[in-house]
Amino acid sequence: MTDAPMTARTGPKDAANAATSAATAGEVLSGFLTAQAGAFLRALPQAVGEAGSRPGALPAGTAGAVAAAGTEDLLRSVRRIGGALHTFGAAFEPGWAEETRTELRWLLNLLAQEPAYLRRSARLLAALDSLSETDPDGPGMLAGHSGAPKARALLERQLTLARTRAHTALLQELRSARLHALADRMTLLASDVPLLAGGSSALLPQAAAALAALAAGAQLLPLGRAATPYGGKGLHRLAAVPPARGAEPVRAAAGPAAEVEADAALAADDAPWHRVRILVKRARYALEVCGSPAEEIGELDALDRTLDRHQEAADAAVTVATAARTPRITPATAYVLGVVHADQRLEVEAARYAFGHQWPNLPHHGWHEWATA
Amino acid sequence: MTDAPMTARTGPKDAANAATSAATAGEVLSGFLTAQAGAFLRALPQAVGEAGSRPGALPAGTAGAVAAAGTEDLLRSVRRIGGALHTFGAAFEPGWAEETRTELRWLLNLLAQEPAYLRRSARLLAALDSLSETDPDGPGMLAGHSGAPKARALLERQLTLARTRAHTALLQELRSARLHALADRMTLLASDVPLLAGGSSALLPQAAAALAALAAGAQLLPLGRAATPYGGKGLHRLAAVPPARGAEPVRAAAGPAAEVEADAALAADDAPWHRVRILVKRARYALEVCGSPAEEIGELDALDRTLDRHQEAADAAVTVATAARTPRITPATAYVLGVVHADQRLEVEAARYAFGHQWPNLPHHGWHEWATA
Repeated sequence: MTDAPMTARTGPKDAANAATSAATAGEVLSGFLTAQAGAFLRALPQAVGEAGSRPGALPAGTAGAVAAAGTEDLLRSVRRIGGALHTFGAAFEPGWAEETRTELRWLLNLLAQEPAYLRRSARLLAALDSLSETDPDGPGMLAGHSGAPKARALLERQLTLARTRAHTALLQELRSARLHALADRMTLLASDVPLLAGGSSALLPQAAAALAALAAGAQLLPLGRAATPYGGKGLHRLAAVPPARGAEPVRAAAGPAAEVEADAALAADDAPWHRVRILVKRARYALEVCGSPAEEIGELDALDRTLDRHQEAADAAVTVATAARTPRITPATAYVLGVVHADQRLEVEAARYAFGHQWPNLPHHGWHEWATA
Repeated sequence: MTDAPMTARTGPKDAANAATSAATAGEVLSGFLTAQAGAFLRALPQAVGEAGSRPGALPAGTAGAVAAAGTEDLLRSVRRIGGALHTFGAAFEPGWAEETRTELRWLLNLLAQEPAYLRRSARLLAALDSLSETDPDGPGMLAGHSGAPKARALLERQLTLARTRAHTALLQELRSARLHALADRMTLLASDVPLLAGGSSALLPQAAAALAALAAGAQLLPLGRAATPYGGKGLHRLAAVPPARGAEPVRAAAGPAAEVEADAALAADDAPWHRVRILVKRARYALEVCGSPAEEIGELDALDRTLDRHQEAADAAVTVATAARTPRITPATAYVLGVVHADQRLEVEAARYAFGHQWPNLPHHGWHEWATA
């Protein structure tokens, strides 16, 4: 193991100085990865313990307990290692980096599902409760609506089921050979980062490329459209759907199949935003590796939170649309689900509006200097 | 009949000069009312003819033909005479002015209903068609949803029925003794305005009072809340509902009764905005009487259009909520109605947001000088 003084825990100023000195670029990258691999190995047993100790279906009110400390720490290091391996890929043996990223992505999806279902459940039930609030000082639009309790029970049941399935899958995979292999990989990484000779001399240009990819992705977003509040376009006019695999466009006869296509249309509308969310995260971790000032990282964190909200509202809307296709629900239930669906799409619009105000106002501190360095 | 050189057709500058000269105030008011009464009498037979010549249920696509020229002209003069009698009430014999206003209000409601149902129908069906649009270049949120055609048919049927009823009532009342009496009243007004001696010397203070009433009404609006786009409060948290006639607040058990109470909660939330809409119209007609510059009147017209949009979206939302309570509709239909309801409440929010940006930026040209004159 090399000395690793340039970990994320080092003050950003020192790290930035280090990163700008080409001689120490390999040390910076090594330091970041060994620290994160160490964090991974410390968090893993705790996360496994947390998963095993909680029941498949939690009683209400214990939402906070699930996205527990160990799991959060594990997710944190998984994201950072994956991001660094992507952005600074030229520094590593390509096959090794690609394999490691695939395994990290697998673990990320596995770990993130259960907390995501919990957050979605909390989001949707809170929205429904708020909409059907009967407090005379501030009743909601669906105050006391007869469909609200049934719609609530339906959403809660379906999300609990999904979460229980995710939990079972997690428990199973936590004992798998695949996870053991990944842990072994992290143990090796914690002691020795397989850098290519000379490959790590170019840290800043690669970080600049991550920022440029983000800028290019944001360029593709319909920010002008999102800048008009209450344009209502998010409900009324979605982005064009790329015809999938030469199939007919979304012009099929009405029916359950057509409804799934409506979901596909919404998904296509959301896709460029979800893509930018990933680019923001990658850029953010790249800045962290390079030891950028906390304020620059903080700006990307703010974008990241906005796009997380966008993703969660979009996912929640899909859940509601799916629940509304449950056979034998009452019209009152379906009506309430329609209102909640529109409400979540409104949240999607609100997040786009917020992003449209955050993004053009970013000072982009050192970005341009980096890109031209 | 007095000479009436100061009608609305006179250039605003001359009229303004006239209005500011106390000596001609009575002439200005007389001129305005005789001109409007004349317009009423010219438009009435045309409006009656238009109503009689159109069938109770129009074929689709003839929407524009209903709010026909004669009816529009008649509504125009009814609103102006009623507004002038309200704002400059001190100039007239109180009993006569009150009676005339009551009769004009009755005719206004009678005439306005059918076009309102037509506009509501056009608004809701356009919203539904837009939401369920399947054009691959811009599909809507409900693209191809199976509930959309049924929801469309349901709304169209219910609104056509309401419009047919309004049409029948109109045809009946156009032959009534009550309308003949009102026409006689307008004939008298066209030749002789019953001004109180000395009562018309104070034109500007009364117009200023109308503007002050508007300012006071706007003060009561939750403009701060409406200023945040996508605050979502319009769906999530309505204004407090004043407990009606000592009744229990909106905390009843869920059920059809509770749903009606939810409508009542929305109505209470909309009420102060609807009130300001009326105050805007009154202030606008008062400026017209006083021959204010076209730009001042134009500003109030812009506010008026925004609040008309607010009212129409709010009324449309009620229609959708009512349609969703139709027995034996399918869950898919109800779901689509829920989305459309939320969409219309979003339009309500959009109008409030627009008003919140228009109102504080009004230059209020001469208002303050008037009020202190």
